[in-house]
Amino acid sequence: MKTLYGIGTGPGDEDLLTVRAIKRIQESDVIFAPNNKGRNMALDTVERYIGDKKIVLLDFNMGNVTDDDYKEATEIIEENIPEGGKGSFLTIGDPMIYSTFIYIMEKVDEDRMIIEVVSGIPSFVAAAGAARMPLTIKGDDFLLCDEPEEGKLKIADSIAILKTNKNKEEILEKLENNGFRYKYIKRVSLKEELILEDKEDILNDKNYISLILARKEK
Amino acid sequence: MKTLYGIGTGPGDEDLLTVRAIKRIQESDVIFAPNNKGRNMALDTVERYIGDKKIVLLDFNMGNVTDDDYKEATEIIEENIPEGGKGSFLTIGDPMIYSTFIYIMEKVDEDRMIIEVVSGIPSFVAAAGAARMPLTIKGDDFLLCDEPEEGKLKIADSIAILKTNKNKEEILEKLENNGFRYKYIKRVSLKEELILEDKEDILNDKNYISLILARKEK
Repeated sequence: MKTLYGIGTGPGDEDLLTVRAIKRIQESDVIFAPNNKGRNMALDTVERYIGDKKIVLLDFNMGNVTDDDYKEATEIIEENIPEGGKGSFLTIGDPMIYSTFIYIMEKVDEDRMIIEVVSGIPSFVAAAGAARMPLTIKGDDFLLCDEPEEGKLKIADSIAILKTNKNKEEILEKLENNGFRYKYIKRVSLKEELILEDKEDILNDKNYISLILARKEK
Repeated sequence: MKTLYGIGTGPGDEDLLTVRAIKRIQESDVIFAPNNKGRNMALDTVERYIGDKKIVLLDFNMGNVTDDDYKEATEIIEENIPEGGKGSFLTIGDPMIYSTFIYIMEKVDEDRMIIEVVSGIPSFVAAAGAARMPLTIKGDDFLLCDEPEEGKLKIADSIAILKTNKNKEEILEKLENNGFRYKYIKRVSLKEELILEDKEDILNDKNYISLILARKEK
């Protein structure tokens, strides 16, 4: 049998790795990560624990990944783990939250390869800590989404919006109209971390690794 | 100046501590945790890193904590951290999610005591990994709550319900009526971890440290 670990590497700072993530990486024969133009943030985070292990970067045609692409990636993973050996698939944040690993996991034949998920600190959790903005207090409902729809804002006390690049202005206006105060957190836990509250500053910032946290004023 | 760390110790397994949580505990002069009949799960999790440090258990009248109680606890914390020293307040899971630390943090005068939040793995994140149940895939909305209301179920693709003891049957029925499949995860990451899917089994189980994850069938 082969073993595949789905490892959450957290938001980026290597000190936010769990003890288990480090152990599993160290006992792996091979490390997998999505190829992001020859780089990968999760790989940077765990760099010191990889040593001279084999690294396999998997190509996904971002924005347009097909079922066959995941199938092919899963085959590459299986081929690259030696018989009786172990591989770690790295994902930023946590493997069960908007990750490529979810699709890989669903393609794996578990009679041939054991799967173990190693949780990581999600970016919105780290952002809440950095911004000191509670995600939930007693009785609260928290909503996590890619894109907020107006109706959904009405039911949440607290919200994290992960993909904020496309229509930031519209998102901020929706939040304001529904009585939320917000913070924009960029590259949380990394040395370039920045927390913005001013609307103009937020609109002027362009960064892929950013998110918005909002809480309803009470 | 004194420093207070709000430390998330994760769901219970000591391997799910982050490197930073361990470092901060080790550099602390004193460790604080809510008193749960002389015990505290977060304290058990970090036991090996505490050594002979001073431990202060804080009494909160659970279910009926007043603003004055938090104020008093904050005063006890401040008194017990030596001038120029550091203290760690432990919370299960993450400090920004349904935690006592949120209320403490809001009472601290930051001109006298520096606050730093150290994120932890939330129980629902660990549960998703253990149950291999994605919290979110692309386009999904995830809702985290204490208690689910019917209307809120309609908007979520995925949901975690943290307090499930009181009216479990009603919760499961609401989930079924709204097209969700669910799993019940008890004491995630601990050696007594148990994942149940059968309704009767779930209804028969009594445990405070349990939660329900549900996903809409598509």
